[in-house]
Amino acid sequence: MRALVIGAAGFVGNYLVRHLLEQGDEVFAGTLKEPVALLSDTTLSVDITDSASVAELMHRARPDVVYHLAGISFVPEAESDFDKTLRVNVAGTANVLRQAHLFSKSTSVLFVSSAEVYGHISPTDLPIRETTPTRPANNYSLSKRMAELVAERYVSQGALRCTVVRPFNHIGPGQDSRFVASNFAMQLARIAHGKAPPTLKVGNLEARRDFSDVRDIVRAYRFLAQQGSGVFNLGSGVPRSIQSLLDTLIKVSGLAVKVEQDPARMRGPEVPELYASYEKAHAAAGWKPVITIEQSLADIYGYWHERVRAEVAA
Amino acid sequence: MRALVIGAAGFVGNYLVRHLLEQGDEVFAGTLKEPVALLSDTTLSVDITDSASVAELMHRARPDVVYHLAGISFVPEAESDFDKTLRVNVAGTANVLRQAHLFSKSTSVLFVSSAEVYGHISPTDLPIRETTPTRPANNYSLSKRMAELVAERYVSQGALRCTVVRPFNHIGPGQDSRFVASNFAMQLARIAHGKAPPTLKVGNLEARRDFSDVRDIVRAYRFLAQQGSGVFNLGSGVPRSIQSLLDTLIKVSGLAVKVEQDPARMRGPEVPELYASYEKAHAAAGWKPVITIEQSLADIYGYWHERVRAEVAA
Repeated sequence: MRALVIGAAGFVGNYLVRHLLEQGDEVFAGTLKEPVALLSDTTLSVDITDSASVAELMHRARPDVVYHLAGISFVPEAESDFDKTLRVNVAGTANVLRQAHLFSKSTSVLFVSSAEVYGHISPTDLPIRETTPTRPANNYSLSKRMAELVAERYVSQGALRCTVVRPFNHIGPGQDSRFVASNFAMQLARIAHGKAPPTLKVGNLEARRDFSDVRDIVRAYRFLAQQGSGVFNLGSGVPRSIQSLLDTLIKVSGLAVKVEQDPARMRGPEVPELYASYEKAHAAAGWKPVITIEQSLADIYGYWHERVRAEVAA
Repeated sequence: MRALVIGAAGFVGNYLVRHLLEQGDEVFAGTLKEPVALLSDTTLSVDITDSASVAELMHRARPDVVYHLAGISFVPEAESDFDKTLRVNVAGTANVLRQAHLFSKSTSVLFVSSAEVYGHISPTDLPIRETTPTRPANNYSLSKRMAELVAERYVSQGALRCTVVRPFNHIGPGQDSRFVASNFAMQLARIAHGKAPPTLKVGNLEARRDFSDVRDIVRAYRFLAQQGSGVFNLGSGVPRSIQSLLDTLIKVSGLAVKVEQDPARMRGPEVPELYASYEKAHAAAGWKPVITIEQSLADIYGYWHERVRAEVAA
């Protein structure tokens, strides 16, 4: 199976590349400029906002399956520049779909959307299913929903095999420290190495979200890419409070720390609870998450502990 | 009432400006470059893809109500350049909504979407209601649905009063001859003045569509702009075949003509029948169409008859 991962240099892209290689796929990476360590010979440069660049990528990689992960994924960045978000996340995805369609009728595309498309949901919507109405409430989720519409058009016209996935929060070693679990683990590792006083800064801890491990998520991508159509939620199916993540990480670290609410980290009113139903992905592909939250958090803490140790040693 | 019509130089914009003036509104026009005859002193230049240009327009017009009609409206043009369509129809609409929001919390926006957002519908979907699922099937309708999502976001967050209208086919004197009723009337007028042989070229005649008069449509725009939220279908509620439009126009012209199918005008498979329910607009604003199809077609023929006469005389 020839697989092309567009956006392979990101957090999820790296895990997906590794998983595909482990499964025996021949893997090509498309990235804007970053190299992909595991694919030194098969990393190709692409600018998804440039139709000709995407066409060239398809002809060089000749993929059976395209995993499209590229785009602006940090919500505040999307919020600050809607024009750019449209250009990259919507027009860019349209270029990928169109060039895949032109390249070969048998190529499948997996488009990575986001559970953010559900937007502001009420307790009666839980668990969130693929049939739950989408109400995108920020520029990021608007752009993802818009790109889904483009994918739906291709599929309904029989012009392309394309599956859409809507992952809920996913975490793992290597994730940017702007994300909550990674941030707490980084702070704890710095405390463990004496690089920071034993006080952990936190924001709201009450919100309950659906966290799963990135390694489970990328397994689902490979299973579902074969579907050829449909939208699939990917999550753990269990709501967990930010407080419970914090408690587990502190326990894993074995540290005695003070927890302090930081006004700069407090957000405005949030949806109190969100979680997915992943029944559809399970029914279609037999997928279910297998990595426990305790394992994920221990691995994330281990990653930061080693990284801060190396920095201290350097 | 201070009204700002963005996209005032187009077919519908011209009728809307006239109607608003007749109703006693103080009317400002925003156009890319075209002058608006009825508003020689209050036509302002705007490029909706430029946020600063839209901000300046709001501050000069200081509108109570914004009618946003600007955009790429010819389906083949949208199909050939999706990037431009996104820039104008989606990012441009986002600029209008954002600048209206920043200008004043009490300003209402009416966004003119399209019945095209319903896309490929089946007979069981008829009549089409606002609750009928949208399945945009071309770049034009995708861009309209995407812009609706942006509007929905503002409204659901209480950031803006915005009504969305989805007009079905609307016709009237002055419409571009790329549109079917206008095209037939132009051909008949040319035959009447001896400028063409008595053979009318036509495409598919079987499709049944929902035609209403542009003068009824713009009346609805003014009523519905006050709603502040919601999506409203606008149509006649009656399906009419292209054949019946042709028959009426031939009768109006009093000519004996031959009708010839032109392969260049034949389209691929189409949805056989489409028509709206306008119950929601009626319930909200008491609106219903009042101009008969016979009157519309007679006026369109009269327009072309006079125009071709003037061209012959010149």
